[in-house]
Amino acid sequence: MKFSFKNDYSEGCHPRILEALSATNFVQQNGYELDDYCLNAENLIRKKIKNPQAKVHFVSGGTQANLIAISAFLRPHESVVSAATGHILTNESGAIEATGHKVHAIETSDGKIRPEEVQKIIDLHQNKPHQVKQKLVYISNSTEVGTIYSKKELIDLYQFCQEKSLYLFVDGARLGHALTAETNDLSLEDFGKYSDAFYLGGTKNGALIGEAIIINNENLQQEFGFHLKQKGAMLAKGRLLGIQFEELLKDDLYFDLAKHANQQAMKIKKAFQEIGCDFLSETFTNQIFPILSNSQIEKLSTNFDFYVWKKIDEEKSAVRLITSWATSDEIVEKFIIEIKNLK
Amino acid sequence: MKFSFKNDYSEGCHPRILEALSATNFVQQNGYELDDYCLNAENLIRKKIKNPQAKVHFVSGGTQANLIAISAFLRPHESVVSAATGHILTNESGAIEATGHKVHAIETSDGKIRPEEVQKIIDLHQNKPHQVKQKLVYISNSTEVGTIYSKKELIDLYQFCQEKSLYLFVDGARLGHALTAETNDLSLEDFGKYSDAFYLGGTKNGALIGEAIIINNENLQQEFGFHLKQKGAMLAKGRLLGIQFEELLKDDLYFDLAKHANQQAMKIKKAFQEIGCDFLSETFTNQIFPILSNSQIEKLSTNFDFYVWKKIDEEKSAVRLITSWATSDEIVEKFIIEIKNLK
Amino acid sequence: MKFSFKNDYSEGCHPRILEALSATNFVQQNGYELDDYCLNAENLIRKKIKNPQAKVHFVSGGTQANLIAISAFLRPHESVVSAATGHILTNESGAIEATGHKVHAIETSDGKIRPEEVQKIIDLHQNKPHQVKQKLVYISNSTEVGTIYSKKELIDLYQFCQEKSLYLFVDGARLGHALTAETNDLSLEDFGKYSDAFYLGGTKNGALIGEAIIINNENLQQEFGFHLKQKGAMLAKGRLLGIQFEELLKDDLYFDLAKHANQQAMKIKKAFQEIGCDFLSETFTNQIFPILSNSQIEKLSTNFDFYVWKKIDEEKSAVRLITSWATSDEIVEKFIIEIKNLK
Amino acid sequence: MKFSFKNDYSEGCHPRILEALSATNFVQQNGYELDDYCLNAENLIRKKIKNPQAKVHFVSGGTQANLIAISAFLRPHESVVSAATGHILTNESGAIEATGHKVHAIETSDGKIRPEEVQKIIDLHQNKPHQVKQKLVYISNSTEVGTIYSKKELIDLYQFCQEKSLYLFVDGARLGHALTAETNDLSLEDFGKYSDAFYLGGTKNGALIGEAIIINNENLQQEFGFHLKQKGAMLAKGRLLGIQFEELLKDDLYFDLAKHANQQAMKIKKAFQEIGCDFLSETFTNQIFPILSNSQIEKLSTNFDFYVWKKIDEEKSAVRLITSWATSDEIVEKFIIEIKNLK
Repeated sequence: MKFSFKNDYSEGCHPRILEALSATNFVQQNGYELDDYCLNAENLIRKKIKNPQAKVHFVSGGTQANLIAISAFLRPHESVVSAATGHILTNESGAIEATGHKVHAIETSDGKIRPEEVQKIIDLHQNKPHQVKQKLVYISNSTEVGTIYSKKELIDLYQFCQEKSLYLFVDGARLGHALTAETNDLSLEDFGKYSDAFYLGGTKNGALIGEAIIINNENLQQEFGFHLKQKGAMLAKGRLLGIQFEELLKDDLYFDLAKHANQQAMKIKKAFQEIGCDFLSETFTNQIFPILSNSQIEKLSTNFDFYVWKKIDEEKSAVRLITSWATSDEIVEKFIIEIKNLK
Repeated sequence: MKFSFKNDYSEGCHPRILEALSATNFVQQNGYELDDYCLNAENLIRKKIKNPQAKVHFVSGGTQANLIAISAFLRPHESVVSAATGHILTNESGAIEATGHKVHAIETSDGKIRPEEVQKIIDLHQNKPHQVKQKLVYISNSTEVGTIYSKKELIDLYQFCQEKSLYLFVDGARLGHALTAETNDLSLEDFGKYSDAFYLGGTKNGALIGEAIIINNENLQQEFGFHLKQKGAMLAKGRLLGIQFEELLKDDLYFDLAKHANQQAMKIKKAFQEIGCDFLSETFTNQIFPILSNSQIEKLSTNFDFYVWKKIDEEKSAVRLITSWATSDEIVEKFIIEIKNLK
Repeated sequence: MKFSFKNDYSEGCHPRILEALSATNFVQQNGYELDDYCLNAENLIRKKIKNPQAKVHFVSGGTQANLIAISAFLRPHESVVSAATGHILTNESGAIEATGHKVHAIETSDGKIRPEEVQKIIDLHQNKPHQVKQKLVYISNSTEVGTIYSKKELIDLYQFCQEKSLYLFVDGARLGHALTAETNDLSLEDFGKYSDAFYLGGTKNGALIGEAIIINNENLQQEFGFHLKQKGAMLAKGRLLGIQFEELLKDDLYFDLAKHANQQAMKIKKAFQEIGCDFLSETFTNQIFPILSNSQIEKLSTNFDFYVWKKIDEEKSAVRLITSWATSDEIVEKFIIEIKNLK
Repeated sequence: MKFSFKNDYSEGCHPRILEALSATNFVQQNGYELDDYCLNAENLIRKKIKNPQAKVHFVSGGTQANLIAISAFLRPHESVVSAATGHILTNESGAIEATGHKVHAIETSDGKIRPEEVQKIIDLHQNKPHQVKQKLVYISNSTEVGTIYSKKELIDLYQFCQEKSLYLFVDGARLGHALTAETNDLSLEDFGKYSDAFYLGGTKNGALIGEAIIINNENLQQEFGFHLKQKGAMLAKGRLLGIQFEELLKDDLYFDLAKHANQQAMKIKKAFQEIGCDFLSETFTNQIFPILSNSQIEKLSTNFDFYVWKKIDEEKSAVRLITSWATSDEIVEKFIIEIKNLK
C-alpha cells in the first residue's frame, strides 16, 4: 500500500476528537446548532478572535461554507471577485454561479489578490446597470497554491474593501496552516478585525468534517440560520460539529496539528532543496510543489502517491505534495530517503 | 435534568459506529465518496434492495437529500406534489422552492397521498404553459405524523406515477421505523422496485449524520455527482458516511435499532391507552400523539421533555413523543409509572 | 367570425397610441428607459399619485412585473402571501418560485386578502429558521375574479403590513378598471400612499404592451435597474413603453378607456340580471361571471366566444365575459339582443 | 441637436411596421403567441431556413432571448463557452449566471471562437464532478466587434460541437447585418442547418422590439413555452411580435434594411480610410471602429454623438460608430464632409 501525499483529508480525525465524541455520546442535546457544544465552541472562537459580537455557525464542508456565506451576503445583481486559482472558481462545480452570482477571475502568480487588481475589475464594469456590481472579494489563506497573506497585505485589502463598500470574505479551509507557517505574521485575531467574515477549516486540520463560519460584520449576521437551513446545511446533530471545534480549540490542538503538518512539509521541502530541486511556488505551509524529472516522478511513485500538478516541459513537471496532522515522522523519514536517492 | 422525548436525534450515535470510526481512523482513503467504505455500503444496499443497477450516494442530512434529489431530477418548469404535512413543505425553510420548483400541497388526514388526489392537482393545471407541469410525487415513510404506507398503497401510487410520467421519490428519514412497525407489510426491496428514488435515513436511526440516496431509475442516475458537489453536499471525508452505513447495514443493526425505538413507543402508547387516552393519529412507529389534559401535560413535564403538538380545545392538547434507538428500558419504565399516575 | 369576450387583450391598441408612435418615430432617443418619453411618463405618474419620490420603471408584461419586483424586493429566505386566486399562483407557471421564493395561498370567497388571514399564515410559521419568513403581501386590484378593494380594506391591510414589517405589493394589471368601477372609493393617489409598490397595467387597458412599476418605498428603489436588466426586461427601445404611458396618462385616456370597458360590462350584466341570471361573484369591473344553463351557453356560443369558467352542476356553469376599451356599443347591443333571447 | 451614431436602436421602427400595426389593429386575435401573425411569421422563417421542423418563438429582446434559451437548454451543472467580448459576458448584468450557469470566457482578437479554444476550456475541466461540464457554445454573428463568421468557420465549429455533444447557439441580434455584409458567404439557411438554435434580431434592424428564437434541434424544442412564460417573456399581445416579423420577412425588407445600414457604414469607413485612419478591427457590417486623435474626436463630437470605445495611447482612441436602417444619405454626406475636414 502506497502512502498518499495527495491531500490532507485521507485519514479520519485526531484521536482526541473520537474520545470527545465517545465521552459525550449519550448526553441528550438540542438539535440544529442549539447544543451546548456549539455554544461553547462559538464562545471559544469569539475569545480567540477577541470579537465578542461575532456570530459563529458550523457547517460540514468548504464548498458549503462558501456558497451559503456568499449567497446569503449578496443581492441578486452583486458579484464576487476571486483569484483565478480560487477554490470557488476551480473546484466547486459552479456552486457560486448556481446561486446566481457571477465570479470574476484575477490572474495571479501566487494565488493572492491585491487592491489594484480588484480596482481593475471594478473599472471594467462601469456601464451600470448593464454590468454586474462587484460586492465581495473572496480570498483563501493559505491559498490553493500554498502561499500566505502577510499582515500588511490583509490590512491593505481590507481597507480597500471598506473604501469601496466591498465585503472581504476569507476561505480558511487551511487557515490553521497559514497561521502556523514560519513566515506568517498574522493572528486569528486579525481575521476577527480585518475581514467581514471568514471560516476556520476543520476538515483539513484534524476534524472528521466541519468548518466554522465566523461573521464579524453585524449587518451580515442577520437571519443567517435561514440560509443554512434552506441550503440543507443545518445538521440535526449539530453537536457533531460543536464537539469537534470545542476539542480543537479548547487548548492549542488546532494550531499544534497545523504546525505539525507544516513542519513535515518543510522537512520534505528541505530534502528536495538539498538535491537541487526548483519549486513551482515558494511555500511555507503544508503544500509543496517541487519540480521533478519524469524519471524522478516515476521512482517516487513506486511507494508514494501524489498528484502531478503541472507539466513544465517534455522532461519535467511540478508535483503537489500535501502533508497533514496525520503525517508521521516515520513516513517523512522514509520519503526523505527516497528523495535523496533521486539525486 | 429532564429526559427528552422531543426527537430521535438527541444523542450521539450507536457505540458500534464510534468503534468502526476508531478502527478505521488511520487507514488512508480517497475523498469524495470514492473510499472503500462508501463503495461497500453502496453494494450492501444494492444487495438488500435486490437492485444491482441502483446508484447510491451519501449525504449529511434529510433536507439536503430532498433538495438535491428533487432539483437534480426536475427541469425548471416542473413541480412537486406533496402531502401538506410533508417535511419539504413544513420544515425545510422553502428549500425546494429555493431551487426554483413549486410544491403543491395535498391536505390529508393521515399524512399519506393517494393517486386520486394527485390527479386532482394535475386536473387543476391544464392551462399549459401558463401553469407548471407536475413531475414528481414526494412521500415520506413513515410519514411526519407517524403513519406508514401499506404495500398496496405504495404499488398503487407507483403505478399511477408510471402511467402519468411522474417520478415517485420517497423520503425515508424514518424508513427503518416504517419497515419494522408491527403493522408493516413492505420490505426494503419493495422500495428498490416501486420508487424512482428514495433515501434511507441514518441521522434518526443511530448514525451521527447521514442519509443514503438510492436512485433506481437509470435516467435519473446520470451525472448526479455534479449536483452533490454543486450544492455543497459532497464531503471530502466521505468515509464518515460510508463507515456508518456499512456498520448499520452489514448485519441487521439498522433494523434492530428501529425496531427497538418502535417497541419503546408501543409500550408508552399502551400505557396511555390503559389510562383511557385518545390519540391524534393511530401510529405503530416511534412517534405517538396522545391527547392529554392541560394538567396531565403539566405533571408529565416535570421530569420529561416533549412537544405540545396541537391544541384540541381549551382543556386538551395532543403531545408528540418520539423514542429512538437510545431510549432505554429504564427510562420507559419510569415514564410509564408517571403515566399511570396521571389517571 | 365570432366576437370574442375571452379577454381584454384581443385587439391591438388605442389609435392615439399608434399616432404617438408615428409622430415620434424618427426622433432619436437614448435606449434603456433613458429616453424623454419614459422620463415624462415617470413624471406624469409621480404627479398623479402625488408622490414626487416614487421611482417608475416600465416593463413589457404582468408576469415580468411581478417576478422582477418580488425577486428584487426579497432576500432568499423570504416568502410571499397571496390569495389562492392570485395571478402569481394560478397563471404564471411558477415564475415566483422559479426565482426561489415560496408563495403561500389564502383561500378566499372574493379574491381579496384580509389582515387576519395573513396573520394566520404567519402564526403557522413560527418555527424559525426551519420555516420561511413571510415578507411580502401580494394583492391584485381589480382581482382575478373581478372584485375590488375598498379604501378601508386597502388601508387596513397596509397598516397591518407596516406593523408586521411586510411589504404590500399591488398587481394593477387592471387597476384602471378597479379605479373607475362605480362602487370604487380608491384613487390612484391612494396607491402612492398605501402600498410599498404597485404596477399600473397598460396591456389590458389599451396599450400594445407595457406595465408601469411604481416603487413608493425608498428602500426598495435602490439599484432596481440591475434587476430589470438581469431578468431581460430592459428594452433597448424603452421609448416604446414611455410613449404609450405618456399618451395614456397625459390626459384621462387611461381612465376613460377603463371606464368604457366597465360600462360595457355593466350593460351586459344588467341584461343577464333582467333575464334572472345569478352570478358567481358580484363585480363592477370589466369581468362578469353569469351562471347559465348548458343550452344557454351553447346558444350564446354561436356568435360569441368566451370561457366557460366553472361548472356549477350538471346543468349549469358560470361563464367569464371580459370587455375592454375596444368593445363597441354595436357589439354590446347585438350581444344583449342574444341574451334577451335566452330567456 | 446632434445626430447619434451611438447605436442602431435610437429611432422607432420602419414605417411599414407602423402601417402593419395600424392595418391589423382591430382584428381580434388569440394571445400568447397563438395569433395568426406569429403563426405566419414562424412559417415564413421555416421556409427561409428550409427547415420545416424548426420551432420559432418571439421574445422582446436579446438578453431575454439569451437567458431563456440557455437556461431552458441546460441542466444545472452545465456551463456555457463564450468569447470574452460576448454580449452575455459584457452587457447583460450577469443574466446567465443569474439562471445558475457559469460562462467561460475565451480571449480573442476578433470576437470569434474557434474549436481549438473551446477544446482548451474542456481540457481544463476534467476533474469531474468537481468542475462544471461544458455544454453550450455561444457565438454572436455579427460579433460585438463587428466581425462575421465565414461559412467554413461556422461549419467547423458546428461539427466540433456535434462531436463533443455541445450545443451551438447563435446570438443573431445583428444577423441581418452579418448576412448582408459584402464579405459574407453564409445564408440564413446555413443557420437552420449548422446550429442547434439561433435568434434573428428585430430590435436592431427596424422593429420596435422583438427577436425570433429559432430552435433546430428537436430535443431542445420540447416544452419551450413553459420557459418563456416562467421568465415573463410571453407577451399577452404576442401579435405585436408576429406582425413585425411577418412584415420584415414577407419580402426582403429585413435584409434590405440591414444592407442599407452596412452600406452607410462602408461609406463612412471609406472616408476615414481616405484621410489615412487605422481601425481597431476590420469590419464590413454596420459597426466601425476608426482610431482618431483626441482633437479629431473633439471636432467630430460637435455635431455628432458616438462612443469613445478604447483608449489606444495618450493621443489616440478608437471610437465606435453604428449606422442603422434609419441612417439617411443626407446625414452620411454631412458626416463625411466633417471627416474630410479632419485631415
